[in-house]
Amino acid sequence: MAITLTLDYNNMMKEFIGEKEGFSPADFTAIEPELKAAFDTVQQNRGKGMQGWMDIIYDQENGIVQDIKETAAKIREKFEYFVVLGIGGSALGPTAVFQSLCHLHYNDLPKEKRGGPKFYVEDNVDPERMVALLDVIEPEKTCFNVITKSGATSETMAQYLVISEILKAKLGDKFADNIIATTDAKRGNLVKLVKEHGFKSFTILDGVGGRFSELSPVGLLPAAVLGIDISELLAGARAMDEHCKEADYKKNMGLMLAALQHVAMARGKNIGVMMPYTDSLKYIADWYAQLWAESLGKSVHKDGTPAFVGQTPVKSLGVTDQHSQVQLYAEGPFDKVVTFLAVKNYRKTVVIPEGCQDIPDIHFLSGHTMNELITAEQKATAYALTVANRLNYTITLEEVNAHSVGELLYLFEMQTAFAGELLNIDTYNQPGVENGKNATYALLGKSGYEAKKAELDSAPALRAEYII
Amino acid sequence: MAITLTLDYNNMMKEFIGEKEGFSPADFTAIEPELKAAFDTVQQNRGKGMQGWMDIIYDQENGIVQDIKETAAKIREKFEYFVVLGIGGSALGPTAVFQSLCHLHYNDLPKEKRGGPKFYVEDNVDPERMVALLDVIEPEKTCFNVITKSGATSETMAQYLVISEILKAKLGDKFADNIIATTDAKRGNLVKLVKEHGFKSFTILDGVGGRFSELSPVGLLPAAVLGIDISELLAGARAMDEHCKEADYKKNMGLMLAALQHVAMARGKNIGVMMPYTDSLKYIADWYAQLWAESLGKSVHKDGTPAFVGQTPVKSLGVTDQHSQVQLYAEGPFDKVVTFLAVKNYRKTVVIPEGCQDIPDIHFLSGHTMNELITAEQKATAYALTVANRLNYTITLEEVNAHSVGELLYLFEMQTAFAGELLNIDTYNQPGVENGKNATYALLGKSGYEAKKAELDSAPALRAEYII
Repeated sequence: MAITLTLDYNNMMKEFIGEKEGFSPADFTAIEPELKAAFDTVQQNRGKGMQGWMDIIYDQENGIVQDIKETAAKIREKFEYFVVLGIGGSALGPTAVFQSLCHLHYNDLPKEKRGGPKFYVEDNVDPERMVALLDVIEPEKTCFNVITKSGATSETMAQYLVISEILKAKLGDKFADNIIATTDAKRGNLVKLVKEHGFKSFTILDGVGGRFSELSPVGLLPAAVLGIDISELLAGARAMDEHCKEADYKKNMGLMLAALQHVAMARGKNIGVMMPYTDSLKYIADWYAQLWAESLGKSVHKDGTPAFVGQTPVKSLGVTDQHSQVQLYAEGPFDKVVTFLAVKNYRKTVVIPEGCQDIPDIHFLSGHTMNELITAEQKATAYALTVANRLNYTITLEEVNAHSVGELLYLFEMQTAFAGELLNIDTYNQPGVENGKNATYALLGKSGYEAKKAELDSAPALRAEYII
Repeated sequence: MAITLTLDYNNMMKEFIGEKEGFSPADFTAIEPELKAAFDTVQQNRGKGMQGWMDIIYDQENGIVQDIKETAAKIREKFEYFVVLGIGGSALGPTAVFQSLCHLHYNDLPKEKRGGPKFYVEDNVDPERMVALLDVIEPEKTCFNVITKSGATSETMAQYLVISEILKAKLGDKFADNIIATTDAKRGNLVKLVKEHGFKSFTILDGVGGRFSELSPVGLLPAAVLGIDISELLAGARAMDEHCKEADYKKNMGLMLAALQHVAMARGKNIGVMMPYTDSLKYIADWYAQLWAESLGKSVHKDGTPAFVGQTPVKSLGVTDQHSQVQLYAEGPFDKVVTFLAVKNYRKTVVIPEGCQDIPDIHFLSGHTMNELITAEQKATAYALTVANRLNYTITLEEVNAHSVGELLYLFEMQTAFAGELLNIDTYNQPGVENGKNATYALLGKSGYEAKKAELDSAPALRAEYII
């Protein structure tokens, strides 16, 4: 099946948003060599280094997908609750796909309508939230999916310690039946625990970083447990991969998106708003926010020269945030690009009934559908931004389904990979989080972090006059 | 009771984040006349024009609060579900306070533990979401709180038409018992419907715009239905109001926050991140995002000269988004101010148990509490940003409770009011949403919008070469 997404970037162009802010085809031809280099690098490095994420949409069909489906079927039969213990990509991906493809009030449905277990993603170490979770699940009836590539993620392993103690107290040696580990094949602590306790485990193949891991078992197991057709997700990703093999940037959505944002960033548009016009795609914007921010937010280029680049992703929701953010988008600084995610066919239709005949401000709605209303509002908002000379483009999904969501996830991964090459930075590292991590270790007295502790202790004393 | 919040802005100052990025006391003395003028204007206009929000924290004690409490008690007794139909401030405020002060999995609790009805806030017109809601509530056992000041909000009134038809079919003339209207006293369509059907209604007093309405019946009724002590919320707001009467900006948290952001904006920091370190305050950042964006995002000054000002609010969550956004905050462009919301005493404690003795990377956590872990991570992240020369400050709540949440809401309202004066813009209007609204009307064929329809029809045709 071919791709079903379309990208319309008319509203990025001079003809539509005016000379001053608009782009012209010449802006792309000016960077054609860079676009070609970015395309070649990404395609040639397929499967190498940290580009394993391009391989897994093919490779996992050899057994891994089948294993996930069989395991998911058993979980759906045996457990009442399924809890992901993970943070970052290990949480954002599963949440995004869950919201896209499951009932919007899934946990509130009776069991027979759900079909699968209640679903929670625990991506924080707030003690109030941990206690709240334990108030609403029955641990002995819960499958905990511990997801961490390194097995050293403090937040996830703190949760693991809490949960495994509770399970041991309730189930004794059988506690291992309630835990599934998703981790790296060889390195890391979680592999040790898998061997020691005999947890069922799934492997994240090589070259798949956290933010590129949704189409690995990180995302596929939770999705399968929720009854989502993971083969369709992968098929959608493969269709988009085929599409993105097109060398002409004018015909390659991933490369064109990277080009659009690259030109925009070069012109100081340091904010990228993503505004889906459906609740189902709300958390795709969250997942994208990590992918884009952590991949492109870098202080150095590949050659070590200073960069300090990166566009800040902003999550918005249509129509909701028209009543919160659009005033700023339309009248504030010219510092943004707005990505609309539009939907052609919603999976449900709601007719707005006849009523309030004597109140024209309400009655004009009668006879329309909510589908028409939300669609009109998306078009109207794009129009209003355009006439206010604000850069925006629209990605349209025919329908939100497993195939189109697979396309969308993979499209954004390709866009990010191309954009990283255009910026000439390392798309796949995250050195900027190390200092905070080490400071946490030092504050908690972890052995080996005595020097960092001394550094923290020697920081200048806070000044009372700067505290109110 | 005095305020319980503290503001620590050491990490905005040169001594801590270095000469280049840091502020000095001279940066504030340089704008002392503007700060004084902003302070005087806001305080002198208390209760006038659109500054009614400063009065309602006192005035409503005359009957309105009592009426809300009595009505809420009846709702808690009679109904199984409570659904807010509203958008913008009518939804963001109720959601923020709900998440702050109720159980984090409130709807999943059994009824006896909840005490009140299940709670939903419907702030979109996505047909999929409307159908999903109807799958999980029983309309005849549901109290719908229709909140719109003008009574002309298309999204909310579309929901009203759908819901009222369903209720009429089930309950006949008694359908009115399941609807409560919160609206303006005189103008607007909702008042007509209140009179026609005899809905119970609550009045939003004069001079209270949507984004400043959480401490009006807009927020107070849902809060009271959820069992929250609304008198404490208001007391917290009054305590903050007293605090913000201090003319010396060095002792006035609201004025100092406005000053810090004003100086930052003048230096090109066009992004304001709010990062609460607790799930309970997650949606305070959402509520603030509307308040700050819609109030300050303006194209003209008060005198009509071009402005194009406004800082884009970004919602983040600690520790969760350390694994998503902090890489960008630490290494990306120097374009941000990060506001940490820290909590001194979490309402629950979770000990991380003994375990994994042979894995030092995990075992160091044992014996600590999650409280210590999340607190260490907040301090470590602030430290890491500070040594990377990134502007940040911390607002600390002793504990999240009705009083401190009241303080926090009112603090941000004061900050916004002062900041609007410093920018010399109209803090209280939102002209930038009109064009999109009118285009929606035109697209749906509303009478009177024929000219707008003609304008839309005459827009240049999309170019196929800009579509992939």
